Parts: sequence; structure tokens; C-alpha cells
Amino acid sequence: MQLSSASQDQLQQWAQELEQQYAGIREQGLKLDLTRGKPSADQLDLANALDGDLGGDYRAPDGTDVRNYGGLDGLPDMKAFAAELFGVPAGEVLIGGNSSLTLMYQQIQFAWTFGVGKDGKAWKDEGTVRFLCPVPGYDRHFAVTEEFGIEMIPVPLTENGPDMDVVEKLIAEDKSIRGMWCVPKYSNPTGCIYSDETVDRIAALGKIAAPNFRVMWDNAYAVHDLDEALPLANIREACEKHGTLNSVVQFASTSKVTFAGAGVAFMAASQENLARFKQHLGIASIGPDKVNQLRHLRLLKDAGALRAHMKQHAELLRPRFDAVLEALDTAFGDSDIAEWTRPRGGYFVSFNSRPGLAGEIVRLAKEAGVVLTPAGATFPYGKDEQDRNIRIAPSFPSLDNIRAAMEVFVVCVKLASVRQALAS
Amino acid sequence: MQLSSASQDQLQQWAQELEQQYAGIREQGLKLDLTRGKPSADQLDLANALDGDLGGDYRAPDGTDVRNYGGLDGLPDMKAFAAELFGVPAGEVLIGGNSSLTLMYQQIQFAWTFGVGKDGKAWKDEGTVRFLCPVPGYDRHFAVTEEFGIEMIPVPLTENGPDMDVVEKLIAEDKSIRGMWCVPKYSNPTGCIYSDETVDRIAALGKIAAPNFRVMWDNAYAVHDLDEALPLANIREACEKHGTLNSVVQFASTSKVTFAGAGVAFMAASQENLARFKQHLGIASIGPDKVNQLRHLRLLKDAGALRAHMKQHAELLRPRFDAVLEALDTAFGDSDIAEWTRPRGGYFVSFNSRPGLAGEIVRLAKEAGVVLTPAGATFPYGKDEQDRNIRIAPSFPSLDNIRAAMEVFVVCVKLASVRQALAS
Repeated sequence: MQLSSASQDQLQQWAQELEQQYAGIREQGLKLDLTRGKPSADQLDLANALDGDLGGDYRAPDGTDVRNYGGLDGLPDMKAFAAELFGVPAGEVLIGGNSSLTLMYQQIQFAWTFGVGKDGKAWKDEGTVRFLCPVPGYDRHFAVTEEFGIEMIPVPLTENGPDMDVVEKLIAEDKSIRGMWCVPKYSNPTGCIYSDETVDRIAALGKIAAPNFRVMWDNAYAVHDLDEALPLANIREACEKHGTLNSVVQFASTSKVTFAGAGVAFMAASQENLARFKQHLGIASIGPDKVNQLRHLRLLKDAGALRAHMKQHAELLRPRFDAVLEALDTAFGDSDIAEWTRPRGGYFVSFNSRPGLAGEIVRLAKEAGVVLTPAGATFPYGKDEQDRNIRIAPSFPSLDNIRAAMEVFVVCVKLASVRQALAS
Repeated sequence: MQLSSASQDQLQQWAQELEQQYAGIREQGLKLDLTRGKPSADQLDLANALDGDLGGDYRAPDGTDVRNYGGLDGLPDMKAFAAELFGVPAGEVLIGGNSSLTLMYQQIQFAWTFGVGKDGKAWKDEGTVRFLCPVPGYDRHFAVTEEFGIEMIPVPLTENGPDMDVVEKLIAEDKSIRGMWCVPKYSNPTGCIYSDETVDRIAALGKIAAPNFRVMWDNAYAVHDLDEALPLANIREACEKHGTLNSVVQFASTSKVTFAGAGVAFMAASQENLARFKQHLGIASIGPDKVNQLRHLRLLKDAGALRAHMKQHAELLRPRFDAVLEALDTAFGDSDIAEWTRPRGGYFVSFNSRPGLAGEIVRLAKEAGVVLTPAGATFPYGKDEQDRNIRIAPSFPSLDNIRAAMEVFVVCVKLASVRQALAS
């Protein structure tokens, strides 16, 4: 379907066919959902052994009784596990509760309210404070910065990560920038992996940015490869080289390894950052759930076991991604109406329609019984200036439901596109 | 031992004996701890069935797959459980993570940063803001308000709760007061239960206080009776009567029911308060650990089963409290050098020495190998103006260790008191 070169007659014929197809779909009364990056029940089953895997033995390897109070930053063995995942020393790791989003929120909250590091002023006392937001990006990141009134500046996300020419220029020119959101591996939603050069240039930002500038490095999909395990450059090593260890705070979790709502979250940061973080965390918390940490250690053991576990996830996820890509290839492979990413890991496919159509496609799909992530959700303040990006999340529905939903999606995209072409 | 009527000779003789006893104790190289309100390993054993009690069935009674994301305010059945405990409608309950302290922190954080209710200004925008703190009280409460720069005003805690004449007068006179900390049943550390009249007068404070005034009602020991279950008046009913439902926020948890570090925390508040709270919580969290909620529901079932479970805790705690009280009765029953409480539940005994001696007693005990809660910890900013209150926490050590620690404590109190009498 090439709209640019199609005649008016051809467009009208397509429109007629598509209106009919769409009406037919609406009559089916479907109820399908491609919205959130939730694991499927099959994936969750992979970690069912968590319940009961302690066998009544609540002693951690270091002797800690995990049932009682204590241990603000987590069990030593869980720290060692997370440190290996991050590629940092265990002394730079803190174990949280069930949500890395909460750790990110706390990092922002503490920085805004109390300041970061030894000499950093609280952001709230610095007038207007800004964050760089590679787009398309993750709505829940943007919601955190918006909550504290931090102004968000969109930055283009390329195949190699944020456009670093833009990032460096903005930071050099605008002294109010205090951070940047990053999902460096299998970025949400495009699936790109930051290139080695990008990682290095991000690590170097600490040399030109304010002393209380912090990169929020959300490595949510560190081991979430669909096929082979692809590498990501070690940002901590790059920071060490540049002398900017305080400028990056890393986050990850087992939410998409074990149980989405009952996993273990962790962060990695410089000793100085961590000391400041713990000073405030200790007021807000009696410490994280160490029983759940021990359960996870028993199940996941080490990096090798973790990798084997993630291969089972990949087996379940790959056909779902394939179903989405097949539907898009078949419908739009030979068209001028859409483009999309081909991620090799993570949880999303990022889809771009012709400008001005994302909202309309989401509306059409919804009325036909297929719920999509709201248009604009992948941009700060929910504003996609071009109104074209849609995040497709294929992990949760069954394969049949994905295929059925994608059929609807394809019709909606075509219908909206042809209608637009006719009206222009 | 009556110091007031003792002759100088008698005092000197006592001093000599006590110095000798103390020196003897120091030689023993003891390592004992009476500091924190932690359950003993025996108590934690009572909930060991939590691990594995799901038997692989991760469906909540309402059909929720507890492993996945979702459910910001908790499982419906857990809400019903907590609602019964609080004596409030289930629609006024929110289930949190493993720490009620975190829920309290969030309540303060949201109120300070964003405001409470519809018309309430953020506390941070109101200049100096103050909190009433019944003393002696709980150091972690005071730490939260201190963290946000909220000025704390100590208020005397009587046998019936806070001195309400003082509380009402302060609120009427000082328009900057925005809240009050309360542990209404088996108060930390005195063990008092607020009287029906006190509860009613606290509920009525909303009529004279600022619209964004909030009582922090930490019902940490709601079912933690050492003997018979003693009643506490229902603050929610009192608030309804006075038309002040928004003025009180309640907190509780299973930390001292199941696992101290891996229990389930909950709060109860008006629909309006809860809506505002959830609006901010939804930015900071992916939702609480629902798997742990389901585990708890399977173990604790209902109010009847909970009560039976708590009786087992009482069996373990009662002899420990008895050991403390016996030591105090024997040493000071017929003296003019100390007074202490006789709690019928909770986790602490509150001890008052002669003025000016608490810090010295804690120091003497520490040098003799017995760690006590730091003197002053039960007061805002750690400042006990009279330097006389010491919190004794007998739950965690073994019975033998409590007896040994109390022997040391008694000698330290006597020694400090006699030395003071000799010096005056």
C-alpha cells in the first residue's frame, strides 16, 4: 500500500474496503489488550518455586535471620548478585523492595528535597530545574519528574541511544539541567541498545554538567535478550575513566525475571551517592524484605543460573514478538505508511504511523475492542508533537490474542492513513 | 533504698558496695542488648509456615494473579482483613509493603511536598510548621518529622494518653500545628492505652485545628496484648461523630505478628485522604507485594485466627516482661530512686530514674556490656530535658539474658543514684 503514489480512485476503493473490514471487526465485540509490559502467566510460572524454596530455613548464607528487622541495604549475598549484574563492586549496591521505580522515585525525591552528594544543593532550592528525556521513552519515568515540577526536555533517541550531540549541546548551554532518563539496553519502547560511544559520552557528561547532575540509568532489561545475549558497555567503568562516578545512578530489578509485582529491586551508585541515599532511606524504611531476597538467591543462585532462567523467558516471548513483526511486515512491508523497530530483547515494539495519526489509531482500535497504550504516553507530558508513536507490548496476551489484536491494529492503521490521504 | 533519708555514712557504704559490684560485672565481659523492639526468634518461628503456604496457588480469592503488576492499594481480601482490625469500612483501607513506617513517611512526605485533601496547602509552603509529640514517644516517628524540618513540640503523655488540656490549648493558640504523633494502644514506650475520653477529644481536634492538620494514629500494637485483649475506643467512629473524618490517618502492620522485616503494612483514612494519597503513591510505586499479602491471608485467615496467633506471642513475651518487672520490683520496689510502667501489652517498659541520670546509667551499662536505647531517644531531637527516661525492650533477648542484663541495669541505676546523692 503506497499512499503517496495512489490515485484518488484507488484511495477511495481502499477506504471502502477498510471501512467494511473495520465495521466487521467492531461487530465481533473483541476485548484485547496490548498496553502494558507485563509478563504472561507462563513467564510467571517459571518462578513458581519461589514460594516454599526456603524449606523453613530463614538463615542467609552470612547468618542473618532474614525474618527480623535490620539490613537497610540488603543481604550481602543479594548485593553480590546484583553487583555482578551491574558490573560494579558489591560495596556500591543497595537492595530495595519490590520496585526499582520506587528506588528511582526516592533518588529523585531525595535529590529534589535534600540534595545529592556533599556539595549538591537541593533541586527544589535552585529555581527551575530540568531533565533530559530521550523520546520515545517510558511514561512512568516522565511521571516521576513531572510530579516534582522538574521541566522535561525531549531529546531524540536514535538507534544508538540518545542523540549525544543534542544532549551535550543542551547541557553546555542550559545550566538548569539536573539529570537525564536512560534505558540503555532494549530501550522502552524502541528496543535500541546504547552504543559503546554513547555510553562513553554519557559517562563524560559529569565533566560538563552541574555537580548535582544525575543520569538515571534504568537497566530494566539487562538480561532480557530474545535471542543471544547482547552486550552493553559498562557505564561504571566509563565513569571511573572520566572521573565522574557520582554522576550516574543505576537501577535494575527481577520484576521481569521472577514475579513482576513481587521481585527484588536494586540500585548501584558511588559510595558517596549511596551514603547520602541511605541517610534518607533510613528515615523512611525499616529495611527491605530480606525473606524475599533469600527466596530469590535460592532460585536464581548466580549469573549462570540467571542466564538459563532468562532463556526460558525468551522462548515464551520470541513467538509473541514474531507475531507482531509478521503482522507488521505483511501489512506494511511494502508500504509508505508506517515504520517500526525490530528489538532483540526487552518488552516492546515501537511503531510510528504517518504524522498526526497515532491518537486516531488508538481511538479506532479501542472502539474495535483493542486497548493500546495511549498515544503520546511515550513522551513527556503525554505530548507527541508529531502524534505518530505507538508502543506495542506483546508479552502478556496469548499468541492467538496477539494475532487477533494485530489484525485489528493493521486495519485501524490503514483506515486512519487512507482517510487522512483522502482528506488532504 | 531510700536516698532522701539516708545518712552520709549509709550513702558511702552503699557506694563502696556498688562500686565493687560494678567492677565485678565489668570483669565478666558481658555482651547483652536491651535496645530495640524486635521479636525473638521464637516469636518469628510462629509464622514460619508463611514460606510455602501458597502451595503453588498464586490466585487470590477474587481471582487476581498476585504474581503480576497491578493493585496499587492491595488485594480486596487483605483490605477486608485490615479493615476489621482498624474497625473501618474496607473502602477506607490501603495495603502497603513491609513497613508501616514507610506509609507514615509517605503520608508526611506527600503532605509536606504536595498537600493533603482538596484545599490543604503543602506544608512546605506554609512557613514554620509544627507537630505535637507526646513524650516519651517513638524515636522513628520523631525522625520523620525532623527530616522535613517540621518543628516538634513535646506534650506530656499521661496514663490516659496525651495531656489533652495541653494539646487543645496549643492547637487553639498556635496556628502552625499540622499534626500529632500517636501510639494509642500500648504506647511506645510507656505501654499506656489512650482512654475513651482521650480518643474522643483527639477526634474532636479536627474542629479547632487547621484543615490540613493530620493525627498520625500509629496503632502498632493493636492486637499485641500480653494477657487479656484490652479495648481501645474506635477513633474513626469518634471522627464521624465530630465530622472530622479527614483529620486522622491510621497505621498498623503485621511486623510484630508474623515477620518483623517481611510483614504487611496497612493504613486507614477517609476516602478523600486516600484518593489524594494514591494519586501520589501511584507515581512512586508499581504496587505492593501481593504475593506476600496472599501468604498472610492464608496464615492469618481472620480476626479469630489472628487472636489465637497473638496468644502464642503473648506466651513468649509475658515471662520476659515479668523478668524485667521482677528485677525492678525487687531492686526499687521500696526505694525513692526510680519509677516504671507495668504495660499489659506492646513491646516496652518505660523507666524513669532520678532527674539527670539517664545518660549516665546508659553509659555505665554500656561499659559493663549491656546496650540500652540511648538516653533521650524517646524525646524529639533526642533531648530529654530531665534526662531520666530509659526505654527497656525485653522482647528479643532470651530470658536468661534479660535477667543477666537487668542485674547489671539495677546496679548501674543504684550506682549512678548513690553517686549523685553523695555529690549533692
